[in-house]
Amino acid sequence: MSYGRVDLVGAGPGDPNLLTVKALKCLESADVIVYDRLVSLEIVNLAPAGAARISVGKQPSHHPVPQQEINQLLIRLAEKNRHVVRLKGGDPFIFGRGSEEAMELARHGIPFDIVPGITAAQGCAAAMKVPLTHRGLASGVRYLTGHCRHDIDLDFDWQGLADPDTTLVVYMGRANIAEIADRLMEHGLDAGMPILVVCNGTTQHEQKLRSSLARVANDIADAGFDGPVLFIIGKVASLADAMEGRDALLHDIAASAQA
Amino acid sequence: MSYGRVDLVGAGPGDPNLLTVKALKCLESADVIVYDRLVSLEIVNLAPAGAARISVGKQPSHHPVPQQEINQLLIRLAEKNRHVVRLKGGDPFIFGRGSEEAMELARHGIPFDIVPGITAAQGCAAAMKVPLTHRGLASGVRYLTGHCRHDIDLDFDWQGLADPDTTLVVYMGRANIAEIADRLMEHGLDAGMPILVVCNGTTQHEQKLRSSLARVANDIADAGFDGPVLFIIGKVASLADAMEGRDALLHDIAASAQA
Repeated sequence: MSYGRVDLVGAGPGDPNLLTVKALKCLESADVIVYDRLVSLEIVNLAPAGAARISVGKQPSHHPVPQQEINQLLIRLAEKNRHVVRLKGGDPFIFGRGSEEAMELARHGIPFDIVPGITAAQGCAAAMKVPLTHRGLASGVRYLTGHCRHDIDLDFDWQGLADPDTTLVVYMGRANIAEIADRLMEHGLDAGMPILVVCNGTTQHEQKLRSSLARVANDIADAGFDGPVLFIIGKVASLADAMEGRDALLHDIAASAQA
Repeated sequence: MSYGRVDLVGAGPGDPNLLTVKALKCLESADVIVYDRLVSLEIVNLAPAGAARISVGKQPSHHPVPQQEINQLLIRLAEKNRHVVRLKGGDPFIFGRGSEEAMELARHGIPFDIVPGITAAQGCAAAMKVPLTHRGLASGVRYLTGHCRHDIDLDFDWQGLADPDTTLVVYMGRANIAEIADRLMEHGLDAGMPILVVCNGTTQHEQKLRSSLARVANDIADAGFDGPVLFIIGKVASLADAMEGRDALLHDIAASAQA
């Protein structure tokens, strides 16, 4: 039997301009697009008009397509000699279970390729002009998912996470942010540690909020954000003012007041 | 005085197809490209033929352009009303001092934008088909630079780094990998913890090596790699076989031997 192929493609954080050139080429040559809920139609519609579009969107409290069925769907389509683009938000190999799909494809001998994507942390950092690393403030960065199956406790190495010299980016953490913030403070992070909260980063519906470990649970409850939320926790979040040139403006104002 | 503008653009890991669409558009409309050593000419030459090209490459033991001079150069060019593209390997806000340049631009009131890029960890993970996170193997990922000024010891929270449930990606770690591996083992990581070493990831000169914490220092010394090296440390590195379909093949061979 001859096979088609599957490209597991990162759709990036939202802005279609943040697709890679390779991802765009994949989309433009696809026979079938299999996409998640968080991928915008603006991106899906970069595929040819004649390409089939299949949503396997997972929405909390709705009935998602089970992972096993997605795997089977990809295999079935590839076996029909189709060029399948499996489009996933962000990067297919950072959260999002892309590797499980890849392993199933490998197991069935179906040719596949991985096309990386800008992950939400990068997209939001760029949009907010807040770096993920910065000399003297953050020697590294780590990404964590704050979501877990509802019957399971968050089980992290909290002492290791509470490192003031590493930027911590929490994906899918809205439901558990109060616990995450409490645990980080219990393990020694300062209550005033700044946090940048971004909702729908890099899209037209982008919203942001500046907060701190002590305040974030209340602030996020008040904000009424509608959409995926990312938390950037660390000293780098304090650079937001400097990046807006606000320090420079204040400096100029002070200088002219003295003149 | 009217100003030009500066785009701080991520050039990605090497393959020009891994530029974002936005990065490509910036390059195509640039008056001046200011680029680092690790950015290939193949990418620089996506700029119009008439655009000026300025290398500020930093090469170990050669004389790089000091950071302060790069900052001043960007400001000077922008003040001449040029559209400047500052092209940096990977993502401008993950290592590489992009944020220092951004702060200087902000301080001088020069309009600037940040265009994220695929960072080496993502590019190498995709090329090697080894995920950065995977259910049951890695609940998160962290990026660390293993390079430091030569008069300073590596000063990390080793206990936090030695987390078997987090993928650790070390950038610029070749010179210090023996110490890094020793410290991780001292703090509890298994000597057999798999490591994937990638040199010149995503380029035509890509080379890879599979190793472990105990062996990596010797293996890298033997390998004679020439180019930037990335270390992906963690249980995910053990998936390389499954991703190549080798397990499936072995399974098929075993099954037919029994038949």
